[in-house]
Amino acid sequence: MDHPITVDSDACTRCGICIEICPMGIIAQDGPDDLPGLVPGGAAVCSRCGHCEAVCPAGAVSARYPACGPQHLPGGSAAIAPADLAAYLRARRTVRRYREECVDRETVEALLDVVRFAPSGMNGQPVHWLVVHDPAEVRRLAGLAIAWMREASRAGHPMADLFGVLVRTWDAGVDQICRGAPHLVIAHADAKNPMAYTDSIIALTWLEVAAPSFGLGTCWAGFFQMAASASPALAEALGLPEGHAPQYAMALGYPAYRFPRVPGREPVRVTWR
Amino acid sequence: MDHPITVDSDACTRCGICIEICPMGIIAQDGPDDLPGLVPGGAAVCSRCGHCEAVCPAGAVSARYPACGPQHLPGGSAAIAPADLAAYLRARRTVRRYREECVDRETVEALLDVVRFAPSGMNGQPVHWLVVHDPAEVRRLAGLAIAWMREASRAGHPMADLFGVLVRTWDAGVDQICRGAPHLVIAHADAKNPMAYTDSIIALTWLEVAAPSFGLGTCWAGFFQMAASASPALAEALGLPEGHAPQYAMALGYPAYRFPRVPGREPVRVTWR
Repeated sequence: MDHPITVDSDACTRCGICIEICPMGIIAQDGPDDLPGLVPGGAAVCSRCGHCEAVCPAGAVSARYPACGPQHLPGGSAAIAPADLAAYLRARRTVRRYREECVDRETVEALLDVVRFAPSGMNGQPVHWLVVHDPAEVRRLAGLAIAWMREASRAGHPMADLFGVLVRTWDAGVDQICRGAPHLVIAHADAKNPMAYTDSIIALTWLEVAAPSFGLGTCWAGFFQMAASASPALAEALGLPEGHAPQYAMALGYPAYRFPRVPGREPVRVTWR
Repeated sequence: MDHPITVDSDACTRCGICIEICPMGIIAQDGPDDLPGLVPGGAAVCSRCGHCEAVCPAGAVSARYPACGPQHLPGGSAAIAPADLAAYLRARRTVRRYREECVDRETVEALLDVVRFAPSGMNGQPVHWLVVHDPAEVRRLAGLAIAWMREASRAGHPMADLFGVLVRTWDAGVDQICRGAPHLVIAHADAKNPMAYTDSIIALTWLEVAAPSFGLGTCWAGFFQMAASASPALAEALGLPEGHAPQYAMALGYPAYRFPRVPGREPVRVTWR
């Protein structure tokens, strides 16, 4: 029988927080002195979120599913003051000019190792990654996106005018598809998963938020994504696993320029109820 | 004539970075000693991203559109070390148990004042906010979501079984719609804007990322969002501006419990090219 969690009877104080916190309501105890445990049938609906082991003040709960933790938080260092986080987030800029220098695979892995903790619907964790690390391959794929736009523009696509501009700019040597970035990161997932798109946008937002900490910059590659979801030739070149669809793409690399200021944005438009 | 930017001829060093950085390619200079400025017709296509004023090393570029900046970055404080940011992000947990204490409007405003710097497609900044601050109103709206699920379940909705569970749980006094949170935050935008959903998910991800810094917790209210986008009664109760649609909702409040550990998540699944 599958036991996704176990509870250490010596360590457990019977505080009941694991019962309170379980989003599926599958942890229970018979009486106040009994050990909490899974309700019958609970294993089948456990979402493997790990809240039970993460929250236990006594460290008495252990998760037993694959890739389980827990990691202990380094004392105090998980807190960032609001002013520091606000300055960090406001300083983030979309980067469309990159240095030619490549980013080590190890750095990209470290970045993705943060992003894998992004939330996902029902803890489905559906996002896989294609990292196009070879700059020449990024250019080749951008060229395939341009080839699709050239055709779509001729065929009267509703965005024909914009595609025409992108194609002419490309022909003049300027890459507005991947912005000349050395790397391209594509989040992909099962095309039939109704939560895959939302979860991918959340994950890519985490990637963009974490990137400046590593000295990196990003740009949402919307034009690339449009082509990737419509062009059979580009889809073939991406070679995603059977049944997977590209959810969104993001350019990645070292920014060519520093931004010493934060530009204005619309004031908050909020209705209170 | 509309001049979205001006350049101070004394301060400008003619370095050309504003020309390089402009995503629309609408800044140019005639010769290397001439002052950069907008190309004819440039004002009409300026996306008001403010990159030109944010990047200028000499502070010579000023944006003149509404709500413009710039804010100078406080020296050095915009940087956060990768290990600190990673610990902060990994420590974030979806919160489904809240203290009864309300969050001051000022704190919510401060949080949204960070989120307004989240990126958006073509710098469209389409996201508006409805903050349901009154806990009784949150319960009333959650009740309307449940009323819709009760009907949809009877009418044979594909998710009838799940809705049945949510309805029975609600009838037993447990709120799985807004998770008993004191507040509900709804991102809304023009229903015809094709980028509104993606931009709203990015903005809500920023809200969720910034919340723990303010001591707050969040939960993506997917069941509420389903009802809000389908129930005429709930739509009327929300009273969004004409033409706007609820893009996604998020529960907000002070977490009832601390999570001293980080649970496991799937290892990174990456293909390198």
